Amino acid sequence: MGVLETFPNSHPGRHYTIVHTCPEFTALCPKTGQPDFGTIRISYVPDKLCVELKSLKLYLWSFRDEGAFHEAVTNRILDDLVAAVKPRKAEVVGDFFVRGGIHTVVVARHP
Amino acid sequence: MGVLETFPNSHPGRHYTIVHTCPEFTALCPKTGQPDFGTIRISYVPDKLCVELKSLKLYLWSFRDEGAFHEAVTNRILDDLVAAVKPRKAEVVGDFFVRGGIHTVVVARHP
Amino acid sequence: MGVLETFPNSHPGRHYTIVHTCPEFTALCPKTGQPDFGTIRISYVPDKLCVELKSLKLYLWSFRDEGAFHEAVTNRILDDLVAAVKPRKAEVVGDFFVRGGIHTVVVARHP
Amino acid sequence: MGVLETFPNSHPGRHYTIVHTCPEFTALCPKTGQPDFGTIRISYVPDKLCVELKSLKLYLWSFRDEGAFHEAVTNRILDDLVAAVKPRKAEVVGDFFVRGGIHTVVVARHP
Amino acid sequence: MGVLETFPNSHPGRHYTIVHTCPEFTALCPKTGQPDFGTIRISYVPDKLCVELKSLKLYLWSFRDEGAFHEAVTNRILDDLVAAVKPRKAEVVGDFFVRGGIHTVVVARHP
Amino acid sequence: MGVLETFPNSHPGRHYTIVHTCPEFTALCPKTGQPDFGTIRISYVPDKLCVELKSLKLYLWSFRDEGAFHEAVTNRILDDLVAAVKPRKAEVVGDFFVRGGIHTVVVARHP
Amino acid sequence: MGVLETFPNSHPGRHYTIVHTCPEFTALCPKTGQPDFGTIRISYVPDKLCVELKSLKLYLWSFRDEGAFHEAVTNRILDDLVAAVKPRKAEVVGDFFVRGGIHTVVVARHP
Amino acid sequence: MGVLETFPNSHPGRHYTIVHTCPEFTALCPKTGQPDFGTIRISYVPDKLCVELKSLKLYLWSFRDEGAFHEAVTNRILDDLVAAVKPRKAEVVGDFFVRGGIHTVVVARHP
Amino acid sequence: MGVLETFPNSHPGRHYTIVHTCPEFTALCPKTGQPDFGTIRISYVPDKLCVELKSLKLYLWSFRDEGAFHEAVTNRILDDLVAAVKPRKAEVVGDFFVRGGIHTVVVARHP
Amino acid sequence: MGVLETFPNSHPGRHYTIVHTCPEFTALCPKTGQPDFGTIRISYVPDKLCVELKSLKLYLWSFRDEGAFHEAVTNRILDDLVAAVKPRKAEVVGDFFVRGGIHTVVVARHP
Repeated sequence: MGVLETFPNSHPGRHYTIVHTCPEFTALCPKTGQPDFGTIRISYVPDKLCVELKSLKLYLWSFRDEGAFHEAVTNRILDDLVAAVKPRKAEVVGDFFVRGGIHTVVVARHP
Repeated sequence: MGVLETFPNSHPGRHYTIVHTCPEFTALCPKTGQPDFGTIRISYVPDKLCVELKSLKLYLWSFRDEGAFHEAVTNRILDDLVAAVKPRKAEVVGDFFVRGGIHTVVVARHP
Repeated sequence: MGVLETFPNSHPGRHYTIVHTCPEFTALCPKTGQPDFGTIRISYVPDKLCVELKSLKLYLWSFRDEGAFHEAVTNRILDDLVAAVKPRKAEVVGDFFVRGGIHTVVVARHP
Repeated sequence: MGVLETFPNSHPGRHYTIVHTCPEFTALCPKTGQPDFGTIRISYVPDKLCVELKSLKLYLWSFRDEGAFHEAVTNRILDDLVAAVKPRKAEVVGDFFVRGGIHTVVVARHP
Repeated sequence: MGVLETFPNSHPGRHYTIVHTCPEFTALCPKTGQPDFGTIRISYVPDKLCVELKSLKLYLWSFRDEGAFHEAVTNRILDDLVAAVKPRKAEVVGDFFVRGGIHTVVVARHP
Repeated sequence: MGVLETFPNSHPGRHYTIVHTCPEFTALCPKTGQPDFGTIRISYVPDKLCVELKSLKLYLWSFRDEGAFHEAVTNRILDDLVAAVKPRKAEVVGDFFVRGGIHTVVVARHP
Repeated sequence: MGVLETFPNSHPGRHYTIVHTCPEFTALCPKTGQPDFGTIRISYVPDKLCVELKSLKLYLWSFRDEGAFHEAVTNRILDDLVAAVKPRKAEVVGDFFVRGGIHTVVVARHP
Repeated sequence: MGVLETFPNSHPGRHYTIVHTCPEFTALCPKTGQPDFGTIRISYVPDKLCVELKSLKLYLWSFRDEGAFHEAVTNRILDDLVAAVKPRKAEVVGDFFVRGGIHTVVVARHP
Repeated sequence: MGVLETFPNSHPGRHYTIVHTCPEFTALCPKTGQPDFGTIRISYVPDKLCVELKSLKLYLWSFRDEGAFHEAVTNRILDDLVAAVKPRKAEVVGDFFVRGGIHTVVVARHP
Repeated sequence: MGVLETFPNSHPGRHYTIVHTCPEFTALCPKTGQPDFGTIRISYVPDKLCVELKSLKLYLWSFRDEGAFHEAVTNRILDDLVAAVKPRKAEVVGDFFVRGGIHTVVVARHP
């Protein structure tokens, strides 16, 4: 699995929000092995650290050969983000393509 | 009527939201017997259980030959969801096609 | 003027919302006698009664030969809805076509 | 029925197009007597005459109490336009609101 | 299967186009028995006859319990339309919901 | 400058909102004398009086030959509205066309 | 009336198209004296000359205090463009705001 | 590489078009090994054979671990389609996500 | 770096909001030296001073040859705005073009 | 000025189209020295060569410090493309941001 790298927050004295949206997310369905696709949107209020953009790209790409349920993968990305940058607040939204005629979105927040 | 199956919530310690949108809903008008069409949007905060996606699809399909008023069917789906997964919070929106020049949306929340 | 008929609310124990949108509303300008057009959006939280859809259609059509100012007609529809179904909450929005280069929307709420 | 008035074309030497779109059209269904609503779009290449805008408005309003099938009313507006302004080319589009779950558009051209 | 009824074309001397769009189409997949959904758009140039709107609605509803492949059902609706109204020209578009991550549209024309 | 005329509120006992949007606003830049264009959106909760629509149109047109900064003109329209109709609440939004590659919106509220 | 200035076409050997769209057009109605608003879109294939952008802006602004019917003003702008830059081909579209519930577009082409 | 399976065209006597759009396409950049994403749209006029939908899904998924330039992969899908179903006409559009600030679309047609 | 000039607030007694949106922002990536592009949206509640529009345009243009990380540049514009006009409240949003398949937005508020 | 590099067309036997859209184009106004912004869309039918994507990006970036009129820069990009890849057909569209209230698009084709 890719590693989320960080860099120091240039404005730790201010409460502000960073939003990264990646429409190029794919993983494998753990049940059927078939590929799933979706958009991952990460937003957070940094404390001392920010996520480095290139490592975020590689981290999201590293799910390409992983089995991952919609609910679990969205929460896992939030877990990894929280572990890496210890944000004041964070939210991850997984917005997945239609399967069986149903469109699924998962929204997880920390804390 | 189809049965909503469940699977254990992978992150019961976190308050997060799952949204399923199904634009392929049809039932019969109890008054006229004519088909009605609509989109059903289900969102909930899981506690110990999540709705299994394939059973949700079959459950929604099982209204195909049922008579159902707009107000009643939206509340019934919420009742069935609450009974099956005992969510912390849930909302069902029924968004129905135009009848008699009028477009109807029903929004029901639990608790 | 058309009469709003009702039917018993199937889920009186739940606080939920019904939204009816009718883009086919027309009345006459009381000043000039010229036709006005608009969309009427009615939303309410039912208590013991719901509005019957066909009577709502006929009720809205019955303004066709009535003189009605934008502000007054929107409030009157709310008055009639409140009298007929005694909702816990209700809102009527009248969204009228451009007259004199100006687009007008009126939003009335009860209580 | 309203009368389409005309004024002389200021540029008869040029082949150019005028498009009038009126989203405030209503008539009565000849079968049921119920109101129908739609948008009428008129486009033509004037020869010696143009349609006067206010008379066009009154002409379209004059269908308000007329019974008119979708196909017939669109062709009739084209007939009346052709009779009044003798255009080099003309097209009338009637775009009507959903009835019975079906949306209807009629497109008639002259010559 | 429902029958397409007709009425005489009010303007047989003019070459004009009628477009009916029905977003409330459902049939069954002949392979799996599962419901398919889609929008059917019918456009034609009438000769002596037009399709009666209510019979068109009932005709499209009558596929509800039929098995029908996307390609075959679109062509069959065109066949039935051509047999019923003998139009000068006709086109049927079947626009079906996503299955297996793929959205399918079929466009058939006569002659 | 045009005068805002009023008429008595038909429903003074209810707290409701009126929104007028005029996309046909133009004034002159006080610095350069060049024309500025924009959309003015006025919303208010009437008390005893409402703004008469035709006088509002003439009032907004009367800025055509006036010099007016974006910030000042939006506040001035709010001042004049408050003086004329003494609303319970009011908001004026001035949404102006791009100048120097920058799009400007001013939002003023009373009280 | 403003004057359309020109500059030499940098690529007279190529047949290419220039499109200028100005949504900030206003003139006066010759009948009522009331202001009209619209968008003017000019497209042309230059021969030896191109329209200078600033003079085009001033030219369009100069209609501000002129009386101008929709049909006539669109054709006049085309006449002035043709006289000034002698283009190989040119088109002017005048797209005017709603008057009397009707939206008007005029499209004129040269030659 | 996945194999495109076929089934017999139900209406070989008619010239009609089938369009399949798959927004879930991913392959690897042959230069950098990084994943690329895009939408593949296939349209064709069948002769004796049609593409079977499930095999099309598997065929498109089989590019997941292949290196493929935008231009070459779009043409190769067209080659494979032509070989499998021998259509009367066919078109493949590859619409790829932004790389280096540039969005690329490739459109290939047969014959 | 450009200097933000100010002018006196015409309505210091009112709490109102000014929003400037500039879609023409470009700077250089401090890591790679490559150009970045984005939209900067500035909104603030003025106290005694407003930002002069032309100086804002020149100020934003002055980043053209500066190296600037997304997070830092958004906060810096907020710092400079706060220093220049001492607003009651302010927000700067930096909405940057896709890099590495990821779209980034930064939202900073004062105080 | 950047150099457009090429690679051999993988399918020279087929007439197909490649479209590259770059919304991150900026140059300087030759008259005022002020930055201009726009989107450049390049489409061409390759013969023996294709444009290499990274060199295209660098080529477009190289206008950053160049003075360039809208008409001339669009034609120059077409000239450079034609010289580099000798396409069977090519088109360049320059779509530039509003200046003086006017939005400009230039469309040049070869041959």
